[in-house]
Formats: sequence, C-alpha cells, structure tokens
Amino acid sequence: MLSEFSLIDRYFARRARTNTRRAALGIGDDCALIAPAAGETLAVSTDMLVEGRHFLPDVDPHALGHKALAVNLSDLAAMGAAPLGFTLAFALPKPREDWLEAFSSGLFELADRYGCELIGGDTTAGPLNLCLTVFGSVRQDTALRRDAARPGDDIWVSGTPGDARAGLAVLRNEWPHIQIDRANAAHLRHALEYPEPRVALGLALGGIARAALDVSDGLAGDLLHILERSHVNAEIDVDALPLSEALARLPRALQLQCALAGGDDYELCFTAAQGQRGAIEAAAQQVGVRVTRIGTITSPDTVTPTETPGTAEAADDGAHTRRKAQAWPTIAWRDASGAPLNLTLQGFDHFHAD
Amino acid sequence: MLSEFSLIDRYFARRARTNTRRAALGIGDDCALIAPAAGETLAVSTDMLVEGRHFLPDVDPHALGHKALAVNLSDLAAMGAAPLGFTLAFALPKPREDWLEAFSSGLFELADRYGCELIGGDTTAGPLNLCLTVFGSVRQDTALRRDAARPGDDIWVSGTPGDARAGLAVLRNEWPHIQIDRANAAHLRHALEYPEPRVALGLALGGIARAALDVSDGLAGDLLHILERSHVNAEIDVDALPLSEALARLPRALQLQCALAGGDDYELCFTAAQGQRGAIEAAAQQVGVRVTRIGTITSPDTVTPTETPGTAEAADDGAHTRRKAQAWPTIAWRDASGAPLNLTLQGFDHFHAD
Repeated sequence: MLSEFSLIDRYFARRARTNTRRAALGIGDDCALIAPAAGETLAVSTDMLVEGRHFLPDVDPHALGHKALAVNLSDLAAMGAAPLGFTLAFALPKPREDWLEAFSSGLFELADRYGCELIGGDTTAGPLNLCLTVFGSVRQDTALRRDAARPGDDIWVSGTPGDARAGLAVLRNEWPHIQIDRANAAHLRHALEYPEPRVALGLALGGIARAALDVSDGLAGDLLHILERSHVNAEIDVDALPLSEALARLPRALQLQCALAGGDDYELCFTAAQGQRGAIEAAAQQVGVRVTRIGTITSPDTVTPTETPGTAEAADDGAHTRRKAQAWPTIAWRDASGAPLNLTLQGFDHFHAD
Repeated sequence: MLSEFSLIDRYFARRARTNTRRAALGIGDDCALIAPAAGETLAVSTDMLVEGRHFLPDVDPHALGHKALAVNLSDLAAMGAAPLGFTLAFALPKPREDWLEAFSSGLFELADRYGCELIGGDTTAGPLNLCLTVFGSVRQDTALRRDAARPGDDIWVSGTPGDARAGLAVLRNEWPHIQIDRANAAHLRHALEYPEPRVALGLALGGIARAALDVSDGLAGDLLHILERSHVNAEIDVDALPLSEALARLPRALQLQCALAGGDDYELCFTAAQGQRGAIEAAAQQVGVRVTRIGTITSPDTVTPTETPGTAEAADDGAHTRRKAQAWPTIAWRDASGAPLNLTLQGFDHFHAD
C-alpha cells in the first residue's frame, strides 16, 4: 500500500495517517481494519475512472479529485448509508506535484465534509486510472435497495437533473448556435464538475423511501434498473421534471434529452408509498435538498396464457404460448394532461456510460 | 456496477449473482452489503495491477486471473483474516471472449477455494488495468499487525522465497549461461505465475505470532516495514534461508539475490516470541506449510545524546546533537557461525515494485 513515490506519500499517506479516527488500523499495514456501527452492515461500492471515458484529458485536477470521490459517495447515498472511509488505488504516468496538490485538495475537501477517511490504497506507474472503493454503514432493514419498488409508489427525483449533461455540452461547445449566458454556463459546468453526493438525503430517506438509486447514466436508463429489479413498470409526467433555470432556457427537446438521457447527475431517484409524501417533503426540507414527484410505479401487465392453435409453434409441441400485452420493463411518458408522449432518447453520448 | 458489456456480464456478474452467500446484497445494486463475523472487524486491502509493471503483456490470462486475486488474498493472510469477498474493477481495451474466459476461470478457481465471493465491480474501456479490493474478517485483538514485533522475537518465513524472482528470470531468459533443467524451470515459473496465498497459515498464526506481512517486494525490503513500524532492528542468519531445490542449484550470489531481494513471493514473514516455537511448528504442520526460523528481532541501539563541542553545528546553536551508534531500521546479515556478512542487494528489478 502507498509507498515508493514520496510525492504521493506526502499528499495522501501522511494525511490519511493523521486522519484516522473511524478505522481501527489505516494505511501502512497489509490491510486496513474497519467496522460498521453496532447492529449495522457495511455498504461497499467501487468505481474506476479512466481518462477520456470519465473525464477529459485536460480536466482540472481539483475537480477530478472531488468528482472521483463524489461519484462513490453517491452510491452510498443511494443506499442510505453513512460514509465511513475509502481506499484509493491509482495509476499515474508521472507524478506531477502541482497536479497531485490540486487533486488531493479536491479529494480531501469533500472527504472531510463527509467524515470519510482514506484508509488504504495503492499507487503505480501507468496510464492515468483512478479506482476508489467506499465504505459506509447502514441498517440492513432500512437500506434503499433497487428491488423494493411497489406498484402505486410515487417516483421522486432530487435536484435538477440534466444540468451536468448541458455542462458537458458547454465545455465541448456542442451547441454553438445556442446563446447561454455566462452565469448559466457556469452553473451547468459546476454541475458537471462538482456534483454534490446526496448523502444527507439518502440517510434521511431510510425507513421512509422504498427503492432508490443514483442517476449516473441518465434518469430514463437508470430508472429502468429499479423497474427490472423490482419487476414493475413506471409512468413519468415529463412536465413535472424539475429543471434548473439554466436548463429551462434551452430548446424543449434539449431540456428533455439532458434531463432524461444525460449522465453524471448523481441525483437520487427513489420511490415511496403515497402515504409518505409528507414525510419525504419534511426530510428533504430538513437536509435542504429539493425533491420532486415525477411519476408513479405501475404493475407490469399480467402475462396471459393464450392458446394459439394453428401457429407453427403450437403445432410443434401443443403447448400454450405466453404473450406479453406490454413489454417489461417499460416507462410510459406522459405530459401534464396525462396524454402519452413519444420520446426518442437514444444516441446521446455522455461520460460514465458504464 | 458491471453492466454494458454483455461479455463481462456473462463471465462475472451472473457467476457472482448465483454465488452470493456471505454478502447480504451483491452485484446489481448501488452498493454491496457485507458484514464481518460477530465480534470481528473487517480487513480491507486494495491492489492495482498494470500491464508491463505487474505482468507481461503476453501473460497467460488464466494465470493473471489467479494472481490478481492471490496477491490480494495474501494481504488478508498477512493480517490473519478469513476471506469474505472482493470487488473487481477493471479497464479493458477490447473485451475478447477467450481472454475473459481464461481470466475469469483463473480468478474464480482461486476464489472458490477460499470461499471468497465477487460482491461488486465496475468495468470500463481503457488501457488494461485491474483493481481488486478484498474483504476479510478478523478479531481485532489477534490481527497480525506490522507494528507488533518485539526485541527477542524469532523471525520466521513460510515456503521458499526467491523462486518467483528466479521464475521471472527463466521467463525473460535473463541468465543464458546458466543451465536450469526443465522440471526446475517449471517449478520456478509456477511460483511466479501461481503464488499460493498463505491464508490458512495466517489464520493459524492468530494469537500465536506477533507481527506479520506478506513478502511482495523481497524479504529484505519488506522486513524493513516491520522494523520501521515496530521500532526494532533484526539479525538474519543467511544460511538458514529455506531454498527450494531449484533455487539451490543456482550460484550462491543469485540464490541470495532472489531469496532476499526478489519480489512476488507472497510468503509470510512473521515474528513470534521464542516460547511459541512449538506452537508455530504445530500450526504450520497442521496447514501443511513449511516455516523456517531465519533470525531474531533486536533492540535498536540506544540513541545517546552526545556533546560535540567545536563542530560547526554545535557552534551554531550550542545544542546537544544526537548521534545514533547504529542506524535504525537495520538488518544485520550473519552466516551460520554468526559472522557478519556484507550483502549488496540493490538494483535487482522485479515486478510489483510498489
């Protein structure tokens, strides 16, 4: 663990050593020792970030340090877990002092805000690659799992999804014909570079919400994971989507593309029984995060055994064949009046596609 | 976690899903949930392996799968922890089915032997990079820490260190003038490619041994980590080093270079009170691993405050300067008769230098 490069030792290991409170044993031994709170279980998530795929080669290293940890803390938030610590393994082509200074600052500023300690790591020479593993503590019976959504649940989202994707467009100058004023451009870019993990909200939702995940690949695609794991469908009121002022100034088609198929939002999408509306509003207000109801979990259509005599398949084995009246998992898009919308959300590339 | 590439899903995620016993929640949610045994704490270690640095570009993928997990299990072994599970994050330039088939076979064959489950992961496109994080369970009061060695302790090593480094030489044809017969060459290469993590030995040593670590960078360098963390020195009887039959046929200078400065052994080096000799022999015999006493932990010489009037430094500030009669941490090399040896171990490159 963390040795060899004295520069890296300076920026990470020493800091971690003086910083160890929750871990029984931190950097410098074969393993770190860590335990969840009494009666709780450990939540673990790992993410690997690669240049060109998850960040641009000229990324601000301070922002990269923030984001590398933020996307992992976001996984804890989506589970309703309290951050405990993290390990950092990374490959660097050549350690550069100014780069490491900025990167570690961005990383530790966020880590300190959430009391999340660096407990171990590994460094090596190689093409730039960051691999973080985070550890949190959660009560197993209130963990926000993806498989817990039930028909009739409200679907909620935190913050204003879509801003990060629009920020990437600003950074890449993808929309040269659209005027975006400086303040709005800065807001969108900040959403991309400094996502705020919804840790406090995730903790506040424990015992109130049912299913949850964090939106990293776009609301539409990520919601499908809940639908798959919970064996349900969904209806979304597209007009209810919460949009930032900056995003609301874009053409409507781009708003929806960004809000539904954009990536890198790291907002929470969660479901809860309708009777919990008041509790959820109160929890969100207490932690100072906007939450918005955007739809409803529905039953997947019943699978009807249908006799189809005379078809080739039936003739082959005489068996009943099964036909689904509606595909599952499916999101039905509606407008505010309830009328169905036909959205095309494919082919909108973004970071963190895997 | 594990999505997008269906090939990867086939080789890893599905296997992991059907394989989940110890983890409360495995792959497919935002986090995996895992807990140490009752009354125990979680031991965590992370390692990143990069092509060209930790393995050759033409490495057998089956061997790579084995070794990627073995080096991590070895960290658990060095802590005396029982393996629970691991996460696997990796970047691949292009998923190739035969490569993934062989890699995952090597990985899971070892994982199954130690009941160590894949509980989560992340995959992405990028230059080949493997990052594993392993989780084990250990009683905090019997964990084998690096800082627990005491003067008078015996120093022990498992197996026959040096074979892996000689295996690398065979693979690279570094010693064209030395005859190594086929069986010995195969033994040495196997030591390099299929290191066996000393998990059972580590568990058996809990409560008997004091300090321990696994030898990844060469016995001499790694022992220094124990000396540093425990504030002690060491004397090693070089003639007591256990050598394999294959290594013993090399010239004496190469034997010592391989056994003391070679890397990739993944044997355990540990210390224990002299009164534990019988217990250690019994524990090692029970798990079928050879262990050998190779030296003794010694006190670092007392640091003597010495007045040195008349020197430039003393003249500057009039202060007492401190001089160490002997540097710390220091390993004193001896032969079987106790006579000091002057060894030069620098400049012997190997894998896993960090």
